[in-house]
Amino acid sequence: MICIISATNRQQALTPQVAQHYQNQLHEAGIPSQILDLQGLPPDFAYSALYQNAGKNPAFNQFQEVIDRHEKFIFVVPEYNGSFPGVLKTFIDGLRYPGSFQDKKAALVGLSSGMQGGALALSHLSDILAYLGTDVLSLRLKLYRIEAHFAEGKLTLPLFNDLLSQQIARFQKF
Amino acid sequence: MICIISATNRQQALTPQVAQHYQNQLHEAGIPSQILDLQGLPPDFAYSALYQNAGKNPAFNQFQEVIDRHEKFIFVVPEYNGSFPGVLKTFIDGLRYPGSFQDKKAALVGLSSGMQGGALALSHLSDILAYLGTDVLSLRLKLYRIEAHFAEGKLTLPLFNDLLSQQIARFQKF
Amino acid sequence: MICIISATNRQQALTPQVAQHYQNQLHEAGIPSQILDLQGLPPDFAYSALYQNAGKNPAFNQFQEVIDRHEKFIFVVPEYNGSFPGVLKTFIDGLRYPGSFQDKKAALVGLSSGMQGGALALSHLSDILAYLGTDVLSLRLKLYRIEAHFAEGKLTLPLFNDLLSQQIARFQKF
Amino acid sequence: MICIISATNRQQALTPQVAQHYQNQLHEAGIPSQILDLQGLPPDFAYSALYQNAGKNPAFNQFQEVIDRHEKFIFVVPEYNGSFPGVLKTFIDGLRYPGSFQDKKAALVGLSSGMQGGALALSHLSDILAYLGTDVLSLRLKLYRIEAHFAEGKLTLPLFNDLLSQQIARFQKF
Repeated sequence: MICIISATNRQQALTPQVAQHYQNQLHEAGIPSQILDLQGLPPDFAYSALYQNAGKNPAFNQFQEVIDRHEKFIFVVPEYNGSFPGVLKTFIDGLRYPGSFQDKKAALVGLSSGMQGGALALSHLSDILAYLGTDVLSLRLKLYRIEAHFAEGKLTLPLFNDLLSQQIARFQKF
Repeated sequence: MICIISATNRQQALTPQVAQHYQNQLHEAGIPSQILDLQGLPPDFAYSALYQNAGKNPAFNQFQEVIDRHEKFIFVVPEYNGSFPGVLKTFIDGLRYPGSFQDKKAALVGLSSGMQGGALALSHLSDILAYLGTDVLSLRLKLYRIEAHFAEGKLTLPLFNDLLSQQIARFQKF
Repeated sequence: MICIISATNRQQALTPQVAQHYQNQLHEAGIPSQILDLQGLPPDFAYSALYQNAGKNPAFNQFQEVIDRHEKFIFVVPEYNGSFPGVLKTFIDGLRYPGSFQDKKAALVGLSSGMQGGALALSHLSDILAYLGTDVLSLRLKLYRIEAHFAEGKLTLPLFNDLLSQQIARFQKF
Repeated sequence: MICIISATNRQQALTPQVAQHYQNQLHEAGIPSQILDLQGLPPDFAYSALYQNAGKNPAFNQFQEVIDRHEKFIFVVPEYNGSFPGVLKTFIDGLRYPGSFQDKKAALVGLSSGMQGGALALSHLSDILAYLGTDVLSLRLKLYRIEAHFAEGKLTLPLFNDLLSQQIARFQKF
């Protein structure tokens, strides 16, 4: 059972749609998965679920439980301001440490309007996951110019679909 | 006039105290400054001040105005989970783009309980500031084992005080 | 007087041509410059000019002298294996430390066959230059798909020419 | 069979001794290994084994064969100028691509005289290995102030020995 993290709280973002597409592809490959959409985080979680309030926000705790139930994660990460969304890191800062991601596995997907495909976002996130004890699959998807390459719930660039299939296959054995 | 950003919303963190110490040192050097403490951000700003709500939260807008009034910034950044606090990046994600940091200058100070002094946090932040158009001073302070090296409002390791003085001197000419 | 470092020893690479184009643009802006082409490094410099042999290779010492004479550098950096060429870092490892780059200024240009434009190469290089004490201009040029966008000695994508002009203008004031 | 890469060509460096210590620990754990010491690279390999000369230097080809025979690698990486040695990246630039590291596994050990333990060196190297298709173990050893913590062929800081044992155990299952 894989957990797909849709890594932004922005509404009407493409990110949840790409996460849904990823889930569909996992489903076709016979791999069960669950989407964890950061849009559902409580609005004040940066205060009510962190530091001295760790563990005290029931709505946030449901997110913690989803993380705790899974061993494998796909991070679908849009590029904001040259890196990942701050909300993703704030979410991680609110999770129990150690234990939330220790000895688990992750694969990374970056999305961008521009040409980078989130290259730096995924590099930064890899450093953080290494710190947390999560092994990261080497094949990082960098879906550049995503608005031009995603339509009707599907990636339209064959290269991206090929890479996504490769990532699924490699992550299954990881 | 320099703006010192105390880059966490965690209460009772050492970060605001180090920011205060930095301000004292600037004052001794005859350089006026203002501290912008992210503890004061509205609790739900990750929702009420970002994306479709950009510009709509008056309390957040006051932070925007402080950024707008300054050309030079000191980021005092604690290391959380192998990088900067998510709240710092979420704060940046809420600021007007472009314009908030374009053609401005920054110097970076990392704090950590461990040995890194925020080396990766400052590397990640440098990438983001480059994206935003902010030139970053090469001398990055990495204040490792900060709990052991900070007491009664002052850095107690002579090396750290030397480096801080160097950073101030170089940032003045930057 | 700006030093343009053509940061590969690969022959028939596009890198020296882009360096030449950069010099032409500087010339048009009335800014004198000199190209330092790493193709000219002595073949065995990784041994004969490093560590216990530092300073002992006269051909390498000429490169050191060019570095010593300049305060401002443009690094033109092709992307090899997801980062900068190893030869560039080996060259830096052979230069006198500290002093070669301390308190100097740099601007970065990345080239790639693929879509990244050397984003990670320039991030890594920025970390190294920060260590060396070199302030790096925030505007990093990322010239992606360079083979498709460079012909007859010129960049053919208007976006790239615009960015290059901006970089020159900002570097002049840096 | 694990390949331990001693990632510098510097003579009398501590790196080969730490590589030897690592091999001893693997041996005690019943895991066979081979050290590949970059001190043995041909002096002019940056020219005679790269680009148009790829595959033409018999002495370098022996290094290629060692890489080809192994599926798992320990990189023992000293920190030079805020990153890995240029010679390590030049070595990688000389190896056949793709194929040398694709679908293989790596674990990283950083050494430094200072406090970082090669944090940035290992971050940069992780990006490169991701590009090459090599999965990297999350647990990165950062052996700071190595001169003070290594004597008579052994790590003397119990923390370092604990982490090294953990890395071996986790890498065996990786």
